[in-house]
Amino acid sequence: MPRPEQPRRAGFTALRSLQTRWADNDSYGHLNNAAYFSLFDTAISLWQIDQGIVIDGPAPTRLLVVENGCTYFAECGFPDVLQVGLRLAHLGRTSFRTDIALFRNDDDAAAACGFFTQVHVDAAGHPAPLPDHLRACLSSLTA
Amino acid sequence: MPRPEQPRRAGFTALRSLQTRWADNDSYGHLNNAAYFSLFDTAISLWQIDQGIVIDGPAPTRLLVVENGCTYFAECGFPDVLQVGLRLAHLGRTSFRTDIALFRNDDDAAAACGFFTQVHVDAAGHPAPLPDHLRACLSSLTA
Amino acid sequence: MPRPEQPRRAGFTALRSLQTRWADNDSYGHLNNAAYFSLFDTAISLWQIDQGIVIDGPAPTRLLVVENGCTYFAECGFPDVLQVGLRLAHLGRTSFRTDIALFRNDDDAAAACGFFTQVHVDAAGHPAPLPDHLRACLSSLTA
Amino acid sequence: MPRPEQPRRAGFTALRSLQTRWADNDSYGHLNNAAYFSLFDTAISLWQIDQGIVIDGPAPTRLLVVENGCTYFAECGFPDVLQVGLRLAHLGRTSFRTDIALFRNDDDAAAACGFFTQVHVDAAGHPAPLPDHLRACLSSLTA
Repeated sequence: MPRPEQPRRAGFTALRSLQTRWADNDSYGHLNNAAYFSLFDTAISLWQIDQGIVIDGPAPTRLLVVENGCTYFAECGFPDVLQVGLRLAHLGRTSFRTDIALFRNDDDAAAACGFFTQVHVDAAGHPAPLPDHLRACLSSLTA
Repeated sequence: MPRPEQPRRAGFTALRSLQTRWADNDSYGHLNNAAYFSLFDTAISLWQIDQGIVIDGPAPTRLLVVENGCTYFAECGFPDVLQVGLRLAHLGRTSFRTDIALFRNDDDAAAACGFFTQVHVDAAGHPAPLPDHLRACLSSLTA
Repeated sequence: MPRPEQPRRAGFTALRSLQTRWADNDSYGHLNNAAYFSLFDTAISLWQIDQGIVIDGPAPTRLLVVENGCTYFAECGFPDVLQVGLRLAHLGRTSFRTDIALFRNDDDAAAACGFFTQVHVDAAGHPAPLPDHLRACLSSLTA
Repeated sequence: MPRPEQPRRAGFTALRSLQTRWADNDSYGHLNNAAYFSLFDTAISLWQIDQGIVIDGPAPTRLLVVENGCTYFAECGFPDVLQVGLRLAHLGRTSFRTDIALFRNDDDAAAACGFFTQVHVDAAGHPAPLPDHLRACLSSLTA
């Protein structure tokens, strides 16, 4: 089972500082795997909101997660402050993939890295072309 | 069903800024009630750690929650940044109660307030006198 | 700090069996306090749905939690199966309070008990009289 | 971005019924992606416990998640009851990979499928050969 190389901060942009929570730790005294996905989700959503994309509310730009994953290199845990960085990995017609890396406190090497593939869907739930503004923002999501 | 008055920032200390997460919102598009408790838990734990109290690991000062509650005044939701403040409400021999208020972004009036009653237990799980250092720190937890 | 007496199964109705999850446990190797609220929320919501009350979707009967709390008597933890029972505690004009007790596996004495006060709000978020059907269902929520 | 085929129930074993929770849904009114990982984690852990493997407590067989992922085919949401099935995907010397599929209520086609790669670590956190009993149990985890 080959593993990706441990990413460095220089490979990512839009780093965001996220405080872990007491409940993020599980019985092993470290961050539960589901908590990483919740942090990735949050970093991606905050970046999208910062770009002016309305992802919530009555008529959102609805970007459904169709695939995601995470590779874990080192244990994190409350009360760590995590830096979560992003990078565009693929830009399709109706979908895109964001690579994500999570850094523990001041570490330069990532404790975990992952990806989210999101598809833009219309109100009926069918894949729809990515809005121009989102496409432009994603194009600039490079380190 | 009488409700407490909506607290103000001036009544609390040790305010800590906590970022909401996308998954904190439920189907109603607002912070789920359980998320408030997770934020309260985190603010209390971070304050205890900052005081040098070792609440985790192989031989922690184990402070079990024996009662808690929350009153909700206004809806919060991702991507709000919440300020969570504390105040000592009661100091007993083996237990203490912390009052908590949660402020949405720059609001002066609390969106929610609550309390955590914690009891200090020994390794066998029996109530034990509060350690002197914790008692001293709690005594100063006043606005 | 006086505590309520530890409730028994006979005092509650509509018991529902809920499986704990690995991530419910925190660093103390037991169910995190926020997980209890998530289980209470679930038991109440499932009961309301079973009564034919539409609490989700585009035009829900919106029942906001305005206050809740929990008293903890004994530790629970994954992989426990929990039985969560309900009982009407108060029925007002626009709001009601449900008492909840949580039983660990086959225990007769509750590991925790709590309450949820919910207010019925209209689309504008203002308190509105409880719908007749909900009122009738709540009236029968007795052990 | 090619996607795996939507798995069927016949391809999985050890199906377990897990109740969704109100808080599992996010603002989109469907199960948040992190909730799927929490359910996968739970199904795998319950199966391991059922095999007599002690994964928690003071001296656990510590099986760390080093990689996981999920592909989403159809939306699920509270109050769905989900059936989560398992299948051994790879058995190494110190690690193994479990494939997981999640079925909504009575659906035969999976709403989501994923995998967890876990490594057995000793008390110092170093990879260690899989215990014989675990290896034998995993060998029989086939549909």
